[in-house]
Amino acid sequence: MPYELYYWDGIQGRGEFVRLALEEAGADYIDVTREPTGNGCGTPAMMKLLKGAELLHAPFAPPFLKDGELVISHVANILLYLGPKLGLAPQDEGLRYAANGLQLTITDFISEVHDTHHPIATDLYYEDQKEAAKARSISFITHRIPKFMGYFERVLMKNPHAETHIVGDGLSYVDLSLFQIVEGLKYAFPRAMTLFDQQYPALTALHAAVRKRSNIARYLSSPRRISFNESGIFRHYPELDQDPA
Amino acid sequence: MPYELYYWDGIQGRGEFVRLALEEAGADYIDVTREPTGNGCGTPAMMKLLKGAELLHAPFAPPFLKDGELVISHVANILLYLGPKLGLAPQDEGLRYAANGLQLTITDFISEVHDTHHPIATDLYYEDQKEAAKARSISFITHRIPKFMGYFERVLMKNPHAETHIVGDGLSYVDLSLFQIVEGLKYAFPRAMTLFDQQYPALTALHAAVRKRSNIARYLSSPRRISFNESGIFRHYPELDQDPA
Repeated sequence: MPYELYYWDGIQGRGEFVRLALEEAGADYIDVTREPTGNGCGTPAMMKLLKGAELLHAPFAPPFLKDGELVISHVANILLYLGPKLGLAPQDEGLRYAANGLQLTITDFISEVHDTHHPIATDLYYEDQKEAAKARSISFITHRIPKFMGYFERVLMKNPHAETHIVGDGLSYVDLSLFQIVEGLKYAFPRAMTLFDQQYPALTALHAAVRKRSNIARYLSSPRRISFNESGIFRHYPELDQDPA
Repeated sequence: MPYELYYWDGIQGRGEFVRLALEEAGADYIDVTREPTGNGCGTPAMMKLLKGAELLHAPFAPPFLKDGELVISHVANILLYLGPKLGLAPQDEGLRYAANGLQLTITDFISEVHDTHHPIATDLYYEDQKEAAKARSISFITHRIPKFMGYFERVLMKNPHAETHIVGDGLSYVDLSLFQIVEGLKYAFPRAMTLFDQQYPALTALHAAVRKRSNIARYLSSPRRISFNESGIFRHYPELDQDPA
């Protein structure tokens, strides 16, 4: 039975971290809201599950994954579950907690990326909070990108097992998520990222290595990969971008 | 060997979710930064581990837990690890993913609580972002508290196993974290919380049931329980509070 991924149609968003893992592993899955409505698919199918009448522990928000009767919500939780099944998690149990810790740091970073364009309220339009968004983006580019990327660079360089893997001796879902973060930052903040390759050579090498993987390369050039756009988490608003610190 | 909890001295903050689990279980633990400096304790011991020279996967930030050689970062990850050991997680594996999903929703909520007083930049003082903080707090009280609390109330009422447990048929770390959220909201936003007990009877009952547990009651009245204050995550700034929606 294929995995069922539930996420907002039309954006990469948080769902993309799960898609990358499923695609790399060549897993059989249905991207439910992107299928024609009816027959348990489409956005109405997701909204029905979210309402929770059928589920004991309904998700708070997408993305969530359905594997048979099991429904798992939150990106890090989904990847914790899928990682071992897809061969994208370390064998060692201690390293699995390290992988989950790294993924949760990515979760926090993604939340900060979102808040660069929505610092005041998720229920208001970007246009209604532009001034605060500019102030938050300045801080994000000046302080937060270097803090998070510097951290990932250090941990990556410290991994004795592999140059382009952040945990363990093989590819993990965390590597795929780091690829996505670099990809997203380059889309959203091209000016801020001009020195990225020089400043973070290990992350740059990881990003390039993931991009070249055959299943990932095939996915990225397929219609299944939605383009970045200004409804997602990584949004390109030139007025929020600036030269790096 | 006792568990070692590492967190910023002087605040409940994110560390408190871990403390509540350790205290409820009567676990042997050291709150490292609150011990006298030296002998592997005090804030310098935490900063040394954070710098990461000794660790393969240094944490990005506190809290983190050390259990022998294993270092685990992020609240949800620590509780995922400790839950089964402390008897505070469901036996069923599927329910453990449900517990982790709920805890990650709590993580997101806590991040939003933090951003009510720091909507623009964590590296600026509250006083330097008061106007944006007021706007964010209005949205938080009007939309986000009802959205999150309404969700937890629904899931809690749906659990067939126990009236005051949100997952499974016994106390879990998620129940303890929900207690802490209600406690924190009542401290930070007393006006916004005036109708809470009427609006969310199931959460109110859970909160009361946790408070009455003997180990929790003993902990709350001990000097180990740090008071809420304006350096933590739940801060009481009267100017950010208002009547509920």
